Amino acid sequence: MGPLPRTLELFYDVVSPYSWLAFEVLCRYKNIWNVNLQLRPTLIAGIMKDSGNKPPALLPRKALNMRHDIRLLGLHLQIPIHFPKDFFSVILEKGSLTAMRFLTAVKLEHPEMLEKVSRELWMRVWSRDEDITEPQSILAAAQKAGMSAGQAQELLGRVSTPQVKNQLKETTEAACRYGAFGLPVTVVHLDDESHVLFGSDRMELLAHLLGEKWMGPVPPAVNARL
Amino acid sequence: MGPLPRTLELFYDVVSPYSWLAFEVLCRYKNIWNVNLQLRPTLIAGIMKDSGNKPPALLPRKALNMRHDIRLLGLHLQIPIHFPKDFFSVILEKGSLTAMRFLTAVKLEHPEMLEKVSRELWMRVWSRDEDITEPQSILAAAQKAGMSAGQAQELLGRVSTPQVKNQLKETTEAACRYGAFGLPVTVVHLDDESHVLFGSDRMELLAHLLGEKWMGPVPPAVNARL
Repeated sequence: MGPLPRTLELFYDVVSPYSWLAFEVLCRYKNIWNVNLQLRPTLIAGIMKDSGNKPPALLPRKALNMRHDIRLLGLHLQIPIHFPKDFFSVILEKGSLTAMRFLTAVKLEHPEMLEKVSRELWMRVWSRDEDITEPQSILAAAQKAGMSAGQAQELLGRVSTPQVKNQLKETTEAACRYGAFGLPVTVVHLDDESHVLFGSDRMELLAHLLGEKWMGPVPPAVNARL
Repeated sequence: MGPLPRTLELFYDVVSPYSWLAFEVLCRYKNIWNVNLQLRPTLIAGIMKDSGNKPPALLPRKALNMRHDIRLLGLHLQIPIHFPKDFFSVILEKGSLTAMRFLTAVKLEHPEMLEKVSRELWMRVWSRDEDITEPQSILAAAQKAGMSAGQAQELLGRVSTPQVKNQLKETTEAACRYGAFGLPVTVVHLDDESHVLFGSDRMELLAHLLGEKWMGPVPPAVNARL
């Protein structure tokens, strides 16, 4: 029997493009490295408020750089990420409250579906420039991920319950206690210490901390499937 | 005869810790990859002003994260980087104007010394927590890099000349034209297009764009020497 898997927590929000990149790379490696990946749906708006940070895209040069950076990283990481046409309205104004409450409900009731439903929401907003705020948008993502219409509808009915609202609040507060000022945040729990890694570009460092091998953002086993 | 080397421009400032990380990784790879690395001393304060950006460390959670991130990256990249005790005074208040003018003079008069003098300034401020604003501090770095006292003194005498001042201003403006809102900035010139990469964590992407092999932040040939 080998050593016990180390736990990785990934705090993410589906309006955050860098969260998607971190999510896909970690999903690729979770079966290659000896880790237990815990997906934690979080509300980035809550983190911005609590930390006093501002979305980077509010600075014009950062917004321009981000657009270019995301395009290059999408190609390099082989993730079909594309900027929505009206970035400010889609990402900064509309936000993700209902979507993240829905993912919180998925995690509570059908945790085995969380990865797929999260991915389908990103595919809508960050790949195909489709809405993720209307009930029918969220239902469509859930069904595309493999849920029945009934299941999806039932979960959507739960997004306003205190249990779901409080759980998303608690997860967001947990990220803040780890020092989050944006997303994604990856927390790696080693035997004797934990490290908080901000952003999607500390994956090679993460491998180093775990004593695992970094084989690039598209490890060979995944590459064969793509 | 192989293909012509591609040009990489690295815009950097010695008060910027992430500039140091990018600088060392690029200096390691410049003889491994088929590239022509152009070191461009730049004034980060000028970039912040022109772009409207603020130093990230002004947000308390970003400052905390940066401290932790720099420590982990220093170990991973095998660069002896350590936070100065009084970060705000050393980095944000004192700044680097004379040091960057000195490096500009080095580039104009003794370009073959630029890499070494830059590194010795980083070793002072970002490794040993030593001053880089006083004339004797800059002279000490230059001599440690292998300059004679006379050479160093003569260059220091040139930091207030219009030629040096204007050159640093022009380089800073060139970085701004590339869209800089901080440092480091790496510009990679390919045959048919150029890409601007912000920060020290796009090196694997840079290798991908160049069609060169990424062998981690400490490539084997360097590792054998360390």
